[in-house]
Order: sequence, then structure tokens, then C-alpha cells
Amino acid sequence: MPPDLSATGELIAVDWGTSRLRAWLLDIDGKPVAEKASDDGIARLKQGEHETVFERLAADWPKVPAIMAGMIGSRQGWREATYLPCPVGAAELSASLLRLETSRGRAMAIVPGVAVNSGEYDVMRGEETQILGLVAERPDFSGTVILPGTHSKWVRLDAGTIQSFQTFMTGELFELLSQKSFLRHSVSGSVEELPSRAGFAAAVRRTAVEGLPFLSGLFPIRARQLLLGSDAAENLATLSGLTIGAEIAAARAAGGIAGEGTIIVGARSLARAYAEALAIAGRGSETLDGNELALKGLVRLARAAGLLPETKG
Amino acid sequence: MPPDLSATGELIAVDWGTSRLRAWLLDIDGKPVAEKASDDGIARLKQGEHETVFERLAADWPKVPAIMAGMIGSRQGWREATYLPCPVGAAELSASLLRLETSRGRAMAIVPGVAVNSGEYDVMRGEETQILGLVAERPDFSGTVILPGTHSKWVRLDAGTIQSFQTFMTGELFELLSQKSFLRHSVSGSVEELPSRAGFAAAVRRTAVEGLPFLSGLFPIRARQLLLGSDAAENLATLSGLTIGAEIAAARAAGGIAGEGTIIVGARSLARAYAEALAIAGRGSETLDGNELALKGLVRLARAAGLLPETKG
Repeated sequence: MPPDLSATGELIAVDWGTSRLRAWLLDIDGKPVAEKASDDGIARLKQGEHETVFERLAADWPKVPAIMAGMIGSRQGWREATYLPCPVGAAELSASLLRLETSRGRAMAIVPGVAVNSGEYDVMRGEETQILGLVAERPDFSGTVILPGTHSKWVRLDAGTIQSFQTFMTGELFELLSQKSFLRHSVSGSVEELPSRAGFAAAVRRTAVEGLPFLSGLFPIRARQLLLGSDAAENLATLSGLTIGAEIAAARAAGGIAGEGTIIVGARSLARAYAEALAIAGRGSETLDGNELALKGLVRLARAAGLLPETKG
Repeated sequence: MPPDLSATGELIAVDWGTSRLRAWLLDIDGKPVAEKASDDGIARLKQGEHETVFERLAADWPKVPAIMAGMIGSRQGWREATYLPCPVGAAELSASLLRLETSRGRAMAIVPGVAVNSGEYDVMRGEETQILGLVAERPDFSGTVILPGTHSKWVRLDAGTIQSFQTFMTGELFELLSQKSFLRHSVSGSVEELPSRAGFAAAVRRTAVEGLPFLSGLFPIRARQLLLGSDAAENLATLSGLTIGAEIAAARAAGGIAGEGTIIVGARSLARAYAEALAIAGRGSETLDGNELALKGLVRLARAAGLLPETKG
């Protein structure tokens, strides 16, 4: 029989978002010894169900403390954690963890969100923990961190501190336009291969380099199909390039892409699409895995909160 | 008994779009003597059903010729009429009417669409007939004609000729964002009163005057609600102002709003919203009723085609 690694677990780290729940059992060094995931995101749960869902997921793990980040700290989550106003670093996040004890006596903490409280107001929940993981890995990095997704975030990070950030509904707009708008009749194909298509590069160039407004690029997708018989897979790539290219142009207009380095936090095809789009816009970038960073951030906060003992080195 | 005016009918004029069908019986002067409407837009009809639907609608009207404009001339319509490339005036439209005879021997004509065949490709079907009606009413007008709606069109009209035009999916984007996106949790209220709200004017100013990119304005609507408790009716007005203001900015960037006059073709609250947004952007405008212009355009084309006798004056 293999050794029961879960017996060595010291902390449960949880990334609990709108549509997904992911939990890791960690040893004293912060290394995962077991992992679980489910579709019990907060969108499908009612008030009061969160503890039950959590205890069911962790039923065969030891009764150790847990730390949670993401929408679980929103008004629709388990308990509402505050939004800390920028600038925010590890010290502010650690100091404002929301502590609670479950009905079974388990010690838990929820990571607060971060807000921009002036100008273009903005909020994040979950991404701050990934950023903290990035800071743990690259303590000296200053520059732009892009977290692509349904609600894509551009973060200005300065030596461990989130100075400001901006959110774009790019992923959600792409979904709505490709699946619910009249453009759905003009597009088809797999999202995986979009970044390598000619239509993607051309649309990024039009929006991010030549300044074509986002709204000006949409209807011509349909018109080119009617008049020129353009290919539906190329059309989907054009739509993707328009949304990502317009996001880059909008972030640049807001000063969100400056002279320093750029790190993309994400996985697979979406991170690749952003890396290629940034390259067309004249920016190099580096991609780091979002799950690993979330885990690193949770471990760092758990240690600061005394939920996981400090180790040497 | 009142006189049976429909006995004096000489022509049936039809505006047949994606979702609606509207028909007028006209006398020899082109004046409506009867009117019918239904929800049998081409989106719900199958190939071969159009004649049946039409004859049912016109069953108690005399067997006179008919002229039709709109999506009825598309590939999904009754018969596909061509797209004429810009520049296009009354002469080109008249010369390219698609003639057909129904199985019951009724003479009919379908108005062709208009296309932009270079640069940002574009197409219209139906609006060209309203423009022709406008030309009949204002033969000397040169300037910008805006036809707001699901797919809003900006037309450069020069002494009776459509020089070029550009389509924006503004209305459809507003619907998708307010009803299908996560912003639906932050907005509510009636569309009628939007233009008089402070959020509308502020959002138009940000986008159309100060150059805020469309994508930058969306997420802050949600963030302001979470952080400041902003009012849901104001948020809907903000979303409307963002989409219309960004459309004005995009049209201006494309040269679509120049030094001459501006006419809005539309009705009620939507036309009013565009008029107020244009005023904030520093442009005067005048609004004309779209149904009346469509009817005028159809009469003019019918006379040119010999479907309705020319009258004096």
C-alpha cells in the first residue's frame, strides 16, 4: 500500500470562484498532497450552503485550518470580506483576513478583495492572491500583470504592491458576441487555434496598433461574409483579435501598459492569444501559471496568519 | 356607411424586416388608405412561405402591384436582390429593382440593398429606401444621416447620393450587456427615460468628448454599484450613454460626422437619446420619422418602375 499522504496535511487552500471550487491539501512546506475540484461555484449556492459543500469536499481530509480566496468572500459568498483600497501589498492583505470558525470548530480565513476607489472604480477578488504568489516568486518585479479571462484584469505592480488595476469584460463580450449576437451566424470553430490564424493578427493590428475603435470592427465581420464569402473560422479569429486588441488599446490609453516588463497569468490558449497580441502591439511578455500562483499566495497568507507554521528557508 | 377607401388602392408598399412586416395600401397619390402589420418577420419564415404570408395579409385589399424593401430581399427572404455598391442614388436603385410575378399573377418588385465594397465592408437593406424618402423630402440635403437601432447606420449623403455608410451593432450590444451579461445584476428601469438621466450625459461625455474607450467604461458600472451603491436606473442610463457615446466617437474617427448637417431617422425615445448625445458631442441635429420616409421612398421607386402611375406635381 502507498503511504497515506493526506495524513501529513496541515492546511487546506481553496480557490472558490463564481463557477468553480478548487481545493488543495497542503503539507507543512506548502506542497500539495491532494487536490479536489467541483462545479459548486458560488453562483449555484444559496446562503448557508457553503459550509456543507466545503465539509463534503474535505470529508476524507484531516480537520486542519483552511484559507479561501475568490468570490467566496463576496456578498453572495460564505461571508463578506472587505475590499482593501489600492495600494495593497502582502502586509495589508494579511492584516485584513476575515477569520471565522465553522460550526464544527474548524479555523478558517477568507482573503479580502482589492478596490480602486477613485476615477474608474474597480474591484477584484481572487486575483490579489495570484498577484501575491507572483510577488513571492518574483519579489523585485515591477510592471504590468495581465490576468486574462471572462473579466480580464490589468494590474500595475510595483515591488510587491498593487498600485492600481483595471478590469475589462473582454472574455464575456467575446462569448456574447460569438454565441448570442447575430454574428453567431458568421463564426465557427475551435478557440484553441485562434491565435495562429491570419484574421486574429490582422484584427489585433487594426485595433491595438492602428486605433480602429472596437465598435467599428464588429459589423464588417458579417458584411465580409455576405460580400466576400469569408471563412467562418477566420471570422471567429477576427472577433477574438478585435476584442483582445481593443482591450490592449484601452489599457494603453489608461496608462496600463508602461515601460517595464509584462507578465501574463493564465493557462494555455488564452495566455498564448494575449502573448501573440501583445507581440503584435510591440510588447514582449512572459506567462506564468495561474493555479500555481494562487496556491503560493494562499500559502504565504496562511503563514502570515499563523494557520500554517513558518518553515525555514 | 363610410366609403370603402381600399377600393381606391393602386399599390401595396411593404417594409419587411427581420422581425416585423408592415404594409400600406396606397392611392394613386401615394397616400395610405389602409395599413397592416404583423410579427411575420423573415426570421420566422421558411423558404416558400413568403407569398402565402403576403397574400393572407393583403387578402381584403385589391389585387394591385406591390413593392417591398428590407430583409425580404436577403438570401433568407422571398428572393435575393443584389447589393449595389456605393455611390448609389435613386436612379441606380430604380434600375436594379428585382421584378417578380406571384403564382397568382401579381406584379411585384423588391428593392436592392446597398454595399460598401472596400475598406470596412458594410451592407444595408431597407435603410436605402428611407434615405430615398429623405431625398424626396430634402433634395438638397448633404451631410450625415443617422438611423439608430439594433444595427445603427451612419450614412454620408451628398445631394441625393449615398456616398458611403457604416454600421454599428450598438442596439444589439446594449441589449446583450443589459440583459445577458453580468451587468444585468446592476441595471434596471425603463428605456424611455434614459436620455434625461445624469448617468447618460456623463457617459456620453466620457466616451464621445473625452475619448474613454468603450471597453474601459463597462466594468466600472458594476464596481461603482458594489463600492458606492450606485442606483440601478442610473446604471442603465450609464450603459446606454456608453454605447451611444462610443458609437459617436467611432463614427467620428471614421470621418462619418463632418461639417454639414445631421439628420436622425427614427422615432421617440431612441431618436431623442441620439439627439441628446449628439448635442453633448457638440452637434445639432434634426429628427425625421422613419416610417414616413420608408413610405415616401417606396412610392418614388414604384413610380420609377411603372408600378404606380406618375402624377402631376
